Amino acid sequence: GFALVDHHRALRKGFPEVIFCQGKTAGQVAQIFKKLCCGRRSILGTRATREVFEAVREIYPDAVYHELARTIVVYRGEPPAKKGKILVMSAGTADMPVAEEAAVTAEVMGNEVKKAYDVGVAGIHRLLDKLDLIRWADVIIVVAGMEGALASVVGGLADQPVIAVPTSVGYGASFNGLSALLCMLNSCASGVGVVNIDNGFGAAALANAITQMIARANT
Amino acid sequence: GFALVDHHRALRKGFPEVIFCQGKTAGQVAQIFKKLCCGRRSILGTRATREVFEAVREIYPDAVYHELARTIVVYRGEPPAKKGKILVMSAGTADMPVAEEAAVTAEVMGNEVKKAYDVGVAGIHRLLDKLDLIRWADVIIVVAGMEGALASVVGGLADQPVIAVPTSVGYGASFNGLSALLCMLNSCASGVGVVNIDNGFGAAALANAITQMIARANT
Amino acid sequence: GFALVDHHRALRKGFPEVIFCQGKTAGQVAQIFKKLCCGRRSILGTRATREVFEAVREIYPDAVYHELARTIVVYRGEPPAKKGKILVMSAGTADMPVAEEAAVTAEVMGNEVKKAYDVGVAGIHRLLDKLDLIRWADVIIVVAGMEGALASVVGGLADQPVIAVPTSVGYGASFNGLSALLCMLNSCASGVGVVNIDNGFGAAALANAITQMIARANT
Amino acid sequence: GFALVDHHRALRKGFPEVIFCQGKTAGQVAQIFKKLCCGRRSILGTRATREVFEAVREIYPDAVYHELARTIVVYRGEPPAKKGKILVMSAGTADMPVAEEAAVTAEVMGNEVKKAYDVGVAGIHRLLDKLDLIRWADVIIVVAGMEGALASVVGGLADQPVIAVPTSVGYGASFNGLSALLCMLNSCASGVGVVNIDNGFGAAALANAITQMIARANT
Amino acid sequence: GFALVDHHRALRKGFPEVIFCQGKTAGQVAQIFKKLCCGRRSILGTRATREVFEAVREIYPDAVYHELARTIVVYRGEPPAKKGKILVMSAGTADMPVAEEAAVTAEVMGNEVKKAYDVGVAGIHRLLDKLDLIRWADVIIVVAGMEGALASVVGGLADQPVIAVPTSVGYGASFNGLSALLCMLNSCASGVGVVNIDNGFGAAALANAITQMIARANT
Amino acid sequence: GFALVDHHRALRKGFPEVIFCQGKTAGQVAQIFKKLCCGRRSILGTRATREVFEAVREIYPDAVYHELARTIVVYRGEPPAKKGKILVMSAGTADMPVAEEAAVTAEVMGNEVKKAYDVGVAGIHRLLDKLDLIRWADVIIVVAGMEGALASVVGGLADQPVIAVPTSVGYGASFNGLSALLCMLNSCASGVGVVNIDNGFGAAALANAITQMIARANT
Amino acid sequence: GFALVDHHRALRKGFPEVIFCQGKTAGQVAQIFKKLCCGRRSILGTRATREVFEAVREIYPDAVYHELARTIVVYRGEPPAKKGKILVMSAGTADMPVAEEAAVTAEVMGNEVKKAYDVGVAGIHRLLDKLDLIRWADVIIVVAGMEGALASVVGGLADQPVIAVPTSVGYGASFNGLSALLCMLNSCASGVGVVNIDNGFGAAALANAITQMIARANT
Amino acid sequence: GFALVDHHRALRKGFPEVIFCQGKTAGQVAQIFKKLCCGRRSILGTRATREVFEAVREIYPDAVYHELARTIVVYRGEPPAKKGKILVMSAGTADMPVAEEAAVTAEVMGNEVKKAYDVGVAGIHRLLDKLDLIRWADVIIVVAGMEGALASVVGGLADQPVIAVPTSVGYGASFNGLSALLCMLNSCASGVGVVNIDNGFGAAALANAITQMIARANT
Ligand SMILES: Nc1ncnc2c1ncn2[C@@H]1O[C@H](COP(=O)(O)O)[C@@H](O)[C@H]1O
Ligand SMILES: Nc1ncnc2c1ncn2[C@@H]1O[C@H](COP(=O)(O)O)[C@@H](O)[C@H]1O
Ligand SMILES: Nc1ncnc2c1ncn2[C@@H]1O[C@H](COP(=O)(O)O)[C@@H](O)[C@H]1O
Ligand SMILES: Nc1ncnc2c1ncn2[C@@H]1O[C@H](COP(=O)(O)O)[C@@H](O)[C@H]1O
Ligand SMILES: [Mg+2]
Ligand SMILES: [Mg+2]
Ligand SMILES: [Mg+2]
Ligand SMILES: [Mg+2]
Ligand SMILES: [Mg+2]
Ligand SMILES: [Mg+2]
Ligand SMILES: [Mg+2]
Ligand SMILES: [Mg+2]
Repeated sequence: GFALVDHHRALRKGFPEVIFCQGKTAGQVAQIFKKLCCGRRSILGTRATREVFEAVREIYPDAVYHELARTIVVYRGEPPAKKGKILVMSAGTADMPVAEEAAVTAEVMGNEVKKAYDVGVAGIHRLLDKLDLIRWADVIIVVAGMEGALASVVGGLADQPVIAVPTSVGYGASFNGLSALLCMLNSCASGVGVVNIDNGFGAAALANAITQMIARANT
Repeated sequence: GFALVDHHRALRKGFPEVIFCQGKTAGQVAQIFKKLCCGRRSILGTRATREVFEAVREIYPDAVYHELARTIVVYRGEPPAKKGKILVMSAGTADMPVAEEAAVTAEVMGNEVKKAYDVGVAGIHRLLDKLDLIRWADVIIVVAGMEGALASVVGGLADQPVIAVPTSVGYGASFNGLSALLCMLNSCASGVGVVNIDNGFGAAALANAITQMIARANT
Repeated sequence: GFALVDHHRALRKGFPEVIFCQGKTAGQVAQIFKKLCCGRRSILGTRATREVFEAVREIYPDAVYHELARTIVVYRGEPPAKKGKILVMSAGTADMPVAEEAAVTAEVMGNEVKKAYDVGVAGIHRLLDKLDLIRWADVIIVVAGMEGALASVVGGLADQPVIAVPTSVGYGASFNGLSALLCMLNSCASGVGVVNIDNGFGAAALANAITQMIARANT
Repeated sequence: GFALVDHHRALRKGFPEVIFCQGKTAGQVAQIFKKLCCGRRSILGTRATREVFEAVREIYPDAVYHELARTIVVYRGEPPAKKGKILVMSAGTADMPVAEEAAVTAEVMGNEVKKAYDVGVAGIHRLLDKLDLIRWADVIIVVAGMEGALASVVGGLADQPVIAVPTSVGYGASFNGLSALLCMLNSCASGVGVVNIDNGFGAAALANAITQMIARANT
Repeated sequence: GFALVDHHRALRKGFPEVIFCQGKTAGQVAQIFKKLCCGRRSILGTRATREVFEAVREIYPDAVYHELARTIVVYRGEPPAKKGKILVMSAGTADMPVAEEAAVTAEVMGNEVKKAYDVGVAGIHRLLDKLDLIRWADVIIVVAGMEGALASVVGGLADQPVIAVPTSVGYGASFNGLSALLCMLNSCASGVGVVNIDNGFGAAALANAITQMIARANT
Repeated sequence: GFALVDHHRALRKGFPEVIFCQGKTAGQVAQIFKKLCCGRRSILGTRATREVFEAVREIYPDAVYHELARTIVVYRGEPPAKKGKILVMSAGTADMPVAEEAAVTAEVMGNEVKKAYDVGVAGIHRLLDKLDLIRWADVIIVVAGMEGALASVVGGLADQPVIAVPTSVGYGASFNGLSALLCMLNSCASGVGVVNIDNGFGAAALANAITQMIARANT
Repeated sequence: GFALVDHHRALRKGFPEVIFCQGKTAGQVAQIFKKLCCGRRSILGTRATREVFEAVREIYPDAVYHELARTIVVYRGEPPAKKGKILVMSAGTADMPVAEEAAVTAEVMGNEVKKAYDVGVAGIHRLLDKLDLIRWADVIIVVAGMEGALASVVGGLADQPVIAVPTSVGYGASFNGLSALLCMLNSCASGVGVVNIDNGFGAAALANAITQMIARANT
Repeated sequence: GFALVDHHRALRKGFPEVIFCQGKTAGQVAQIFKKLCCGRRSILGTRATREVFEAVREIYPDAVYHELARTIVVYRGEPPAKKGKILVMSAGTADMPVAEEAAVTAEVMGNEVKKAYDVGVAGIHRLLDKLDLIRWADVIIVVAGMEGALASVVGGLADQPVIAVPTSVGYGASFNGLSALLCMLNSCASGVGVVNIDNGFGAAALANAITQMIARANT
């Protein structure tokens, strides 16, 4: 076999099994899904094309495909009690696939998720309309490409931890997300952590690590 | 002599004579100031240390030094009628030298200048308090380092032309202003033009080119 | 719906509605065009392929496609009185799509537009032949790839505001427009502002923000 | 005055007042400290030289200077109840100033702080000796320069949120922290967020935002 | 002919003939294979697509294609006595093509090769399970993308020479392997040398240069 | 001794001996000058501080120091017949040290040198005033920092070979000469070759290689 | 029409008409070829695909296509007397398209051209076998990708002007030619000028500018 | 104490204790030297200034300072039997500090070291004069800045493992060693591994790891 599947780490983390589908053939992904089929935990596939999904569906007919998020989920076990409240915000329409990847991941990991999309800073009133949502959240994920300024503004408005996801949306001097990445790393607001460009999954995993600590405190 | 002084261009532009002092010795700068002393036009020296100023004052005892802006001005001729209203905004305390360079330059070129400093986006209420000033201006110069997000927010709030000046303020991944520069170039707000990092003078010169067109229309 | 359409900002700016079509499917773009159909304002789509145009034409049979500029325009309302005179210059044949995007945008926004294409600095007489046009303009947009030197030369010849648009035209060490971008940011001519690589739309929007101030002064 | 001090934001966040001293004169810093002297909240100065400290001590004789961390603290009010447990880990001796900045900040903000320094991955047993500390923590801050690999290994061992701080420690191809920064952003371990190069303060502020949510859940 | 085939260098090195197939047409590669057919030495083609292999098989029906490694081998002459023991380790599933290129190359050059794949540092126990293999080796090749941290950890555990191969696996801030490359160059473990991104062949050639020296000492 | 002085190459090239003084102590440079004292050929030291010159003058009292060019020349042998006509042009005052290094080098190598300084493209008439000089030259060296556009314009005006020298003059997005370098490499004028940033010596050496070929043809 | 054809510059330079075909449709290129058909001068098209050639052949049935060089030539007028001797050297097989572009261009411009391909420095004897060719040349064009070291070695062996052309050949840390470009710019051999990555045409045009000066001296 | 000294690793590796002195005060370095004084093993300090050395000499009066190599050695125990033959080559005079750091390190670790300095490729005969030395070596360390081409040429001449050390020697487009680094990583010669810029120590440590394997085979 060509992948040592790491059951124990996954269990320990309260995680679903996660498969990064990009760069693997539909057949390879399907095979990995098959190996994981112990039935007790959900399985999440990220960066999956519809073609990959079709191959997975052959094995798990109840697999669900989130088109925009490019994710596959095979739900298993009891739906977990909600650990925390995660708000996913995005600056523009084109950032939605990354935002949705974060949202789906956060949900599958057992969190209540709300969304505020298309609230980029060039029309600041759109953001100010969402103050209630901001107050609601335990953790906020901010997804933005181009100049990535949304993270700073949200970081200034919110006391909660903010996880910034730069996206490769843009052209020219956005340099495939470098612009947004640098902008977010230099945020003058405090309480902002950054993950890799387009890494919606990673943002949700970090948000979930936080809500898990909160849930632990709650009990 | 080591510099062909271009009188005609300066006159044509309604410009003061301008000397970029950085990288020149106090003696060299003083000599250039001397050559320009025809008495009809003001002279502006940018990026001037106090030592350079002392050398210039030997020649023009009424020369004025703007410490923070690092500029020298020798005022000559009639104070010009005000061409337009220029607002200089800056994100943080550390951006002030660049903002002041822009402000002094805009003033010497014959504009009414107002300032709104320390209004960075991490505390958005500070910016929203300045909406009256924003409405007042013909042109807005936005000076910001680190993530440079202020330009996008102001660009979204204002209909007037916005000139964004990235600064080298910051550390680490600000990469000496690269972060702010890229952020401003990728601004999703429309109506924003960018000048070189730390180029307060250039921003004011462009703002002045705009107010000059407005003044021309007014007459 | 997947996009909060921001009517008010658009109105306030005297702008057409603008849709950035790149990265959206033909269906998505058509739907957005549909939502905007209030009949009082023109609609501009940028970075549109012919396929996208065909989808839009289903909804607005009178939509116009500018092949080279890759723009769609649905003209609505009274043609606006011309606010100002905008000259679009470009260095080489390959820069024309970006130059045309700027020209179409400037026109739709209500400006008189003239063009001087293929006047790159390697044949300086071609540029010097256009001095009359340069004098005619209120604002000049300079579009150039490769070494982007045209902006500096025009900036030196003109007193008006110059908006420089670097293009990704070139190969090798042009690094997809980085070369032209840096060149323009370092322009030793004063009165030059820069927008993102290939951002013809943004240049026109800034030019229009300037002519709008001029028009306001005229009345 | 040259800085709009934002009392309200600070209060809301359960934060000390924070002053970024770098790039300011001793006199300027002292003045800002003076303005903040309302007596109810502690004041933290980061990136402070000993000279700056001496100026501050003139005003607050009980100010404390952390040499290695380059921080000044003026303790005021009741020591806050400990919100959470923060572990600060560092890879090498040279990373200690940044790690100490994080540790002092986290403590002043009201957290219990433990440290595990000099546990870089080139001697993995040093890290494995610290598993108890890792289990103890609510949040882990990992400070590393050069190849920055420590964040990935800790991220794999821990379920808690990990905040990675790249440092500019290194030479040659470390490119002033770029190497560590990229390494951390690409961490294949999940649950890792990154802050700016050398930003020990920012890491602690994010960690504190997390422990604050945990503390809120506890009550 | 369009390539001066360098027989002598190859002989001297105890090398197979090597053809870098990327960027050559199937026909060109086949022709080069043909020219090399003196029968005494094996021929290795790297970066070969299946289409290229089909063209080569027309000429050498016994040519072998390693799908994952993208290599073609035409075995000739006596199988050489094993010079040394080379361990190829890789961090993730996606690094396997590069790891396999190294493994096939090392084998064809006359070495005993063992493999330990998918032992990335985010699950450090997977690596610690391989300590016996690490002790077995004369030289260790470490293949890793993304943060490339595996090289440092192995370099710390092993006394033998470690050859690190960064891969272009990853996305966003991995910048096509730059992240892993910088990480490996900055390894704080001693005894680590780095080759070009994705250069499995080069790593094996260097490993073989080392085992050759060891073999020489043995005799 | 610490430098294998390569007499033969120097002789063959009709070159003076050349010493790159930067990064060497005054003592080291003086020692190298001493070793070269065969009396038949001139010696050129580049990047020499005045302090270095003083040390050399101890040995060669007739050594000449060109302050601006930062070069030392010890003239020996017959002044060579002039091989060719080299024009050195520069864009701004700050580019003069590099231009002078080129001029001194070209002269010592046996060429007639003329200069046209401060003819940057932002005032194109200054350049057009020099058309006679341009026609006079066999080879043209163009020295420019910031946007480096001068090379393209001269390249377009001249049929002769143009050697472009980017300088590190500028700030911000000039990135220590990168901007000018890229600009010159992307020159759309044909007949332009580029040397390293600030490499006045190298430009003159290449110009001299050309005039040497011309001189050979003349005889 | 969409291109101001610059007859005069071309004539003055003793150049063929030159068309850069990349980024233009077959139809556009054919049209430009048509416009240039005055019959007195040859026409050269670079970066032309076979499809573009087919379109040109419709108009000029005697047009010649150089497959490897990707150039089209329409020969017109008397073959010019040979101006000079140009040697084109290349490091590897993959550099041949760029080398051939240089060779064809140099020939069409009226030079005698010889070639020494596949003489990269990793087998230095291959290069040393070509010393006679090196001595033969008036100007040497060196084409190399990857580490680009050939330019330095040839520059050290030759007294003639050397024009270095970095190519985008390579992978990984060759960064599309950046590696070779930097290597060539830093050549410690004197007498080396560099052109843009993959710019075989530009190298030949510069070589031709040099031979033209030599030819002028000869008459 | 601020450094967990790792005795065991050092012993296991047949290494001296090694202290990286850069960025530490003289006092700190002296303290670390003191802690290590068990008497059985030598101690090596790299990147040490003379001031640091003086502090160490207070503790170990027999400590030796290698000025050029910037290293301190405290010799202890029996001089080890020579493990292998290491040749250190360097391109230019300015590369000597790095080359000497490698040479001293290799010697202290128990190897026979020979040197061939100032053999850069621009004078290839200097290198060809050293073929006997090349044949003598078990491992070759190649130290070069600027274009770093020496590694490729030596890699082509030698069958032994070559360790390439790029240096930060150069200016302009050498970008502090980036140029040499990229050049070496792209070496088209096989059998070349690269270490960090200016990392003479690391090269010697890797060379020693190789000779240790050879020595083991010998016994
Ligand atoms: N979109 C994503 N971006 C980054 N990492 C991911 C992503 N999706 C999954 N992963 C990680 O990839 C691991 C699985 O990788 P693999 O074994 O290659 O399928 C999971 O454990 C996750 O930590
Ligand atoms: N070519 C363009 N480049 C950059 N921004 C554009 C362009 N065209 C339109 N825009 C901006 O994109 C906004 C619409 O984006 P969207 O909502 O994604 O369609 C408009 O309001 C414009 O400000
Ligand atoms: N995957 C690879 N990466 C880098 N270099 C390679 C690779 N495969 C083969 N080579 C080198 O390329 C040379 C052959 O190149 P070529 O003559 O273009 O086929 C061989 O001698 C090897 O040194
Ligand atoms: N391969 C090439 N690389 C760079 N410039 C070229 C190339 N081929 C032609 N040119 C230049 O491009 C000009 C023609 O460009 P265009 O008008 O776009 O066809 C010619 O005058 C040449 O100077
Ligand atoms: Mg916050
Ligand atoms: Mg606006
Ligand atoms: Mg101007
Ligand atoms: Mg974790
Ligand atoms: Mg080791
Ligand atoms: Mg020319
Ligand atoms: Mg030479
Ligand atoms: Mg070799």
